[in-house]
Amino acid sequence: MDEPRFELETNRIEALSDGVFAIAMTLLILELKVPVLRGDAEISELPASVAALWPKFLGYAISFVTLGVYWVAHHLHFFTIRRADRMLLWINILFLMTISIVPFTTALLGEYPRHILPVTVYAVNMIAVGLALQLHWSYATSGHRLIDKTVKPELIRSVSHVILMGPAVYLVAIVLAFVNTWISIILFLLVNLLYILPGSVHMHLRHGGARKSD
Amino acid sequence: MDEPRFELETNRIEALSDGVFAIAMTLLILELKVPVLRGDAEISELPASVAALWPKFLGYAISFVTLGVYWVAHHLHFFTIRRADRMLLWINILFLMTISIVPFTTALLGEYPRHILPVTVYAVNMIAVGLALQLHWSYATSGHRLIDKTVKPELIRSVSHVILMGPAVYLVAIVLAFVNTWISIILFLLVNLLYILPGSVHMHLRHGGARKSD
Amino acid sequence: MDEPRFELETNRIEALSDGVFAIAMTLLILELKVPVLRGDAEISELPASVAALWPKFLGYAISFVTLGVYWVAHHLHFFTIRRADRMLLWINILFLMTISIVPFTTALLGEYPRHILPVTVYAVNMIAVGLALQLHWSYATSGHRLIDKTVKPELIRSVSHVILMGPAVYLVAIVLAFVNTWISIILFLLVNLLYILPGSVHMHLRHGGARKSD
Amino acid sequence: MDEPRFELETNRIEALSDGVFAIAMTLLILELKVPVLRGDAEISELPASVAALWPKFLGYAISFVTLGVYWVAHHLHFFTIRRADRMLLWINILFLMTISIVPFTTALLGEYPRHILPVTVYAVNMIAVGLALQLHWSYATSGHRLIDKTVKPELIRSVSHVILMGPAVYLVAIVLAFVNTWISIILFLLVNLLYILPGSVHMHLRHGGARKSD
Repeated sequence: MDEPRFELETNRIEALSDGVFAIAMTLLILELKVPVLRGDAEISELPASVAALWPKFLGYAISFVTLGVYWVAHHLHFFTIRRADRMLLWINILFLMTISIVPFTTALLGEYPRHILPVTVYAVNMIAVGLALQLHWSYATSGHRLIDKTVKPELIRSVSHVILMGPAVYLVAIVLAFVNTWISIILFLLVNLLYILPGSVHMHLRHGGARKSD
Repeated sequence: MDEPRFELETNRIEALSDGVFAIAMTLLILELKVPVLRGDAEISELPASVAALWPKFLGYAISFVTLGVYWVAHHLHFFTIRRADRMLLWINILFLMTISIVPFTTALLGEYPRHILPVTVYAVNMIAVGLALQLHWSYATSGHRLIDKTVKPELIRSVSHVILMGPAVYLVAIVLAFVNTWISIILFLLVNLLYILPGSVHMHLRHGGARKSD
Repeated sequence: MDEPRFELETNRIEALSDGVFAIAMTLLILELKVPVLRGDAEISELPASVAALWPKFLGYAISFVTLGVYWVAHHLHFFTIRRADRMLLWINILFLMTISIVPFTTALLGEYPRHILPVTVYAVNMIAVGLALQLHWSYATSGHRLIDKTVKPELIRSVSHVILMGPAVYLVAIVLAFVNTWISIILFLLVNLLYILPGSVHMHLRHGGARKSD
Repeated sequence: MDEPRFELETNRIEALSDGVFAIAMTLLILELKVPVLRGDAEISELPASVAALWPKFLGYAISFVTLGVYWVAHHLHFFTIRRADRMLLWINILFLMTISIVPFTTALLGEYPRHILPVTVYAVNMIAVGLALQLHWSYATSGHRLIDKTVKPELIRSVSHVILMGPAVYLVAIVLAFVNTWISIILFLLVNLLYILPGSVHMHLRHGGARKSD
């Protein structure tokens, strides 16, 4: 922490990240393929064929909201992070890598929602997202390495707790998949409420960390 | 409105939104697939095969312009919106979700333009876009929550009326699809003129809300 | 020109445009599909199968460079354009629409490089790009509507001439396709040199219009 | 170097580049296709089918990290580059072209990891990336054309050496592919460590070139 350090601006990191998020969120829809039906007999089945897409649509909706949650979280980190170094850059690229896999794991889940493997793969993907985000946060905040000196230690700890709640829920979802995969999928949807509904952490952030926007 | 509030900068919200719009607009073209023809006999049918893509091209053009309309509208909102809070962020993500579905509903419409279901699905998608945009506007402006105090109430109301004209027209288009789906599709094209041609609302905006660019 | 006008910032127009260009340029590669070969006998044909992709690779390279040309041109316009109005916004969206079609017309050309129809479709696409860009330029500059008063009329005219050279060459390419489509395709490649090699227009631009970067 | 020069802002070059990188990095995942299995007998093979995707996943991971390396390098260049001219713009577009091919060469490698041709094609792609980056750097720095006068010649040279280490390793990988293609693929992964691990060049950059962020 004391040695001189090659500092990077955070604006291009944010630009690359916004790009990867926007693309991953929009690519999700490519998994909803228009049913190919030929002849009058088959076309009469169009409503049924479209309706049969619902598990894929559900997967799309869950992942869109989840990516939204992590985009917001990433966004909030950069309220307290004042500068970047090479290591943060690479942790961020690792984080973006876990994000860019989401269209694949979502497609797998949407195709086979009743099987344990896709549910597990999806949950492992999301655990990786959460752990990479936590690594990002703890690297930036450890010893106030890249953040403002005024950010309080309690804030740093409570943000970590909130981040780690995600992986914990996804772990539970893996276990519950052995009972019924739909329970896990509903959990994938509900876990986002932890982050969307206003919580105490953001009270802290409001008072302690959000200097940039003042 | 009186309680302290965690305020966010609007620039990254705009960056994510511009990204999602740019990608959704450009992905539309992926639905125009190059005809696969083998052997001289089949290749002689190339002009006919390309010409047969016209409903997909029409769908592409309608949706590109419609996304353009909503991008412009979103852009104009941020002339009066001075700051963001968590709720606005999430309403915006909901809005982007309705936008990101457009490549799918457009593909469905382009593949089956003569059937009621795709026309209805497309119209429902667009009604969702319009309602999400109206939610965005009314949340930001209600009690001047996130906008400048000087914005006049008449402006706020007339922007709402203009936004809600869209969903109203799409509702009519659903009804008319039972007469002939092409009437609905022509309406999908024409509704955009309401927003492209200059109207009175933007007179108001010009005088009352567009401070940022002065 | 004298009436008050709702002015828009140009930065989000540029952001949307950069997004559409970046996506269209990168989507071009999706047309190069990896050959699917099964069994040892077929896999021995891998080098031949990859080599057979060369017309698609050529199409990819031509369109990438051409999109680069128009991105640079669009970029240069915004050196002299000081502000935007609704009409410019819509002309820009029309321009982006002609850009977003390029991955389709390129794919068609790469699949059927020996047929007149794909060459014509590609050239018509590029003529539309050029005319939309010229509309953009002439709208912005007519009566110095959206540009600096100091920009000289000769500069405005010579930029127009340079822009219109493109459509003229693509028209010639359509005619030459009836002789041999490869002549047209080579012309699609060479026309870009008109814009890449330094010419007199940019001398003018350097002295007359490029204030922003000073 | 002495003649007057049309100078361009670097921010839109960076925006286009960030867009192309973000898209290329995110498109990589599209090569992992969800296995299509029908009937109970086939679906029991889901774990095996997903596991069989591992070479594609490896290719995805290698290319994501490699694109990350080159994005960081490109990013670092713009710390010392103060302005752009037309030639730099075009060298940058050439560089982005080599980047945008990566999803194709990665897909080819992931499909046929045991064959020399895909390994060679991938390595040639990466050599082109490295040489284009070196061209970018040497053009910008030659005679301090577009960089700060204070940047030391030793820094310029050592950055060049670091850049050229990449192509050298990829050349070796081509040769080793004739022994065993997996050695080359492991080299494709390991070469990135040269850039990710902190090295002496960045010490120089820290002290000599990184003025912008100060």
